[in-house]
Amino acid sequence: MKNINKITLKTRKSLSVNDYFNGIRNGNRAILSKAITLIESSNSKHQSIAEELIELCLPFSGNSVRIGITGVPGVGKSTFIEALGSYLIAEKAKKVAVLAIDPSSKKNHGSILGDKTRMNKLSVNDKAFIRPSPSSGTLGGVAKATRETTILCEAAGYDTILIETVGVGQSEIEVKSMVDFFLLLMLAGAGDELQGIKRGIMEIADAVIINKADNDNLHNAKMAVREYKNAMHLFPANSNGWIPKAASCSAIEAKEINTAWAIVESFVNQTILNNSFSENRKEQAKFWLEHAINSSLMNLFYSDEKVKAQLLKLQENVSEGRTSPFKAAKELLSTFKAK
Amino acid sequence: MKNINKITLKTRKSLSVNDYFNGIRNGNRAILSKAITLIESSNSKHQSIAEELIELCLPFSGNSVRIGITGVPGVGKSTFIEALGSYLIAEKAKKVAVLAIDPSSKKNHGSILGDKTRMNKLSVNDKAFIRPSPSSGTLGGVAKATRETTILCEAAGYDTILIETVGVGQSEIEVKSMVDFFLLLMLAGAGDELQGIKRGIMEIADAVIINKADNDNLHNAKMAVREYKNAMHLFPANSNGWIPKAASCSAIEAKEINTAWAIVESFVNQTILNNSFSENRKEQAKFWLEHAINSSLMNLFYSDEKVKAQLLKLQENVSEGRTSPFKAAKELLSTFKAK
Repeated sequence: MKNINKITLKTRKSLSVNDYFNGIRNGNRAILSKAITLIESSNSKHQSIAEELIELCLPFSGNSVRIGITGVPGVGKSTFIEALGSYLIAEKAKKVAVLAIDPSSKKNHGSILGDKTRMNKLSVNDKAFIRPSPSSGTLGGVAKATRETTILCEAAGYDTILIETVGVGQSEIEVKSMVDFFLLLMLAGAGDELQGIKRGIMEIADAVIINKADNDNLHNAKMAVREYKNAMHLFPANSNGWIPKAASCSAIEAKEINTAWAIVESFVNQTILNNSFSENRKEQAKFWLEHAINSSLMNLFYSDEKVKAQLLKLQENVSEGRTSPFKAAKELLSTFKAK
Repeated sequence: MKNINKITLKTRKSLSVNDYFNGIRNGNRAILSKAITLIESSNSKHQSIAEELIELCLPFSGNSVRIGITGVPGVGKSTFIEALGSYLIAEKAKKVAVLAIDPSSKKNHGSILGDKTRMNKLSVNDKAFIRPSPSSGTLGGVAKATRETTILCEAAGYDTILIETVGVGQSEIEVKSMVDFFLLLMLAGAGDELQGIKRGIMEIADAVIINKADNDNLHNAKMAVREYKNAMHLFPANSNGWIPKAASCSAIEAKEINTAWAIVESFVNQTILNNSFSENRKEQAKFWLEHAINSSLMNLFYSDEKVKAQLLKLQENVSEGRTSPFKAAKELLSTFKAK
């Protein structure tokens, strides 16, 4: 693969699927970046290259730990990822890819990873690869792109995938369905620690990490950890046997990052031993197959001209209680089938 | 409507849609029962009568408070409903319908309301109507039937609908989407109060009521209430402004049932005032329309012979990581469209 560096100098158009594949397998980050751009492209030619490339990379994917990281804006996600990534590269000889799912990035640009400079050290480290969230697309589209990007990153040799998402709305469920471990970053507050976090998020976290456990805040953070431990003890263990953990750290001072990582390691060891690590991945693959079938079918249905013509009126009738949802659905289905 | 009583003596076959409608509007419970049997029937003729009947009843429905009641087996759901129903009829001049969603009723018959005699007083009260869960059908089918049964009960003048469900699995989400208020019954235990309750259930409860607060257990129940109040305080208020409440009662001694009901009343007053009561109902109608469209489309897709022929192999490929979920979905969709 002598000519890989030459290839990176060519324009995107001139790269073949095999060029992309070889570049990725050789850890060429410029080619990896370009390939991800194909995944995010709505151009059908790009998409078909991307699809072929993903199939080629699939056999070389999977050998990583995929970690979802969420928390409200201001909790210090970027700083935490900078600290965790640097720690993993320096102390654990890892290669770290940082991806993001941010459905809001279209509106308030830069809310997640928009500014790579927020990860000063990591962005210049050659063992790290940082990719901001696609700047357009539906949440479903962004999630699909992130899942596919994970495959390429793994094929490129990244063994730790950090997927960042903002702590609001539906995106957590999507991320939960593509990671092995889900980490919720929180702040110690005045008895209102979960403010801004949608109900249910805490329920899907494998660990709650209280960030900014430093200076005057240290005592409060330790108190919050205790509070969370008590609250989490009210919930039963996950089906994989894992009992969610709580801990604190200071991302900005790079303190107790090793504690957070020890939790992840313990989770991975335990779930590999009881087989739930690979079972979860298989379940996730099934989930995404159903998810993809579902969304394609919905697209097909809702873009049908005759369905469209009928839908608004029926929606209103249902919403005002003039017709039952089930009857309205039946009418729409007959319309759809009749074409 | 002089001849209503005569009509009840006829066989089901001879009743017209209008006979059913008039019977229901006149509060004839035998006819209401028969109509619900039509809803639950898989016979297409029965279904078409049921459909027409539901549309006729719709304008007369909605004037009730719909309450979901869940909790693990042994928590005392039937006793609680017996006590609450009797209280509402005696003290609040209500008419109470009790329905059930129980996806497990096919297997272990009688786990919910299977035995009406567990509600001795309520089952002979002429202001109460008790309907066990359909003894067959998928969860989706049972949920649909329950929603439609609610419409008929409301048209028959029942102003309080109690929908009972067992505290495990998916059924809570279905019930949550058809009630105004969701009540979780619990027992005080040895620090393990949520045992057997799936994660996330507590998150969707508008109130947690600790049952069996009597005799030796009274102190523990009061302690548990305090514990839940503390835990719930960690969660933010619902989007409707409601902060979930915790309280205790003794269903078997019919004590503090008024406290539980006061919570429901306060919820209803608050959400009617801030408009979220009707907004929630509209959202639910939309949810059920989407839900119905979705499940009909899925049926259409997965019962397609060509899709079926291809599906198993592709599922396996996806699960084993040989092909990506998105590519597999695309192939299946082309097959589906090509027919």
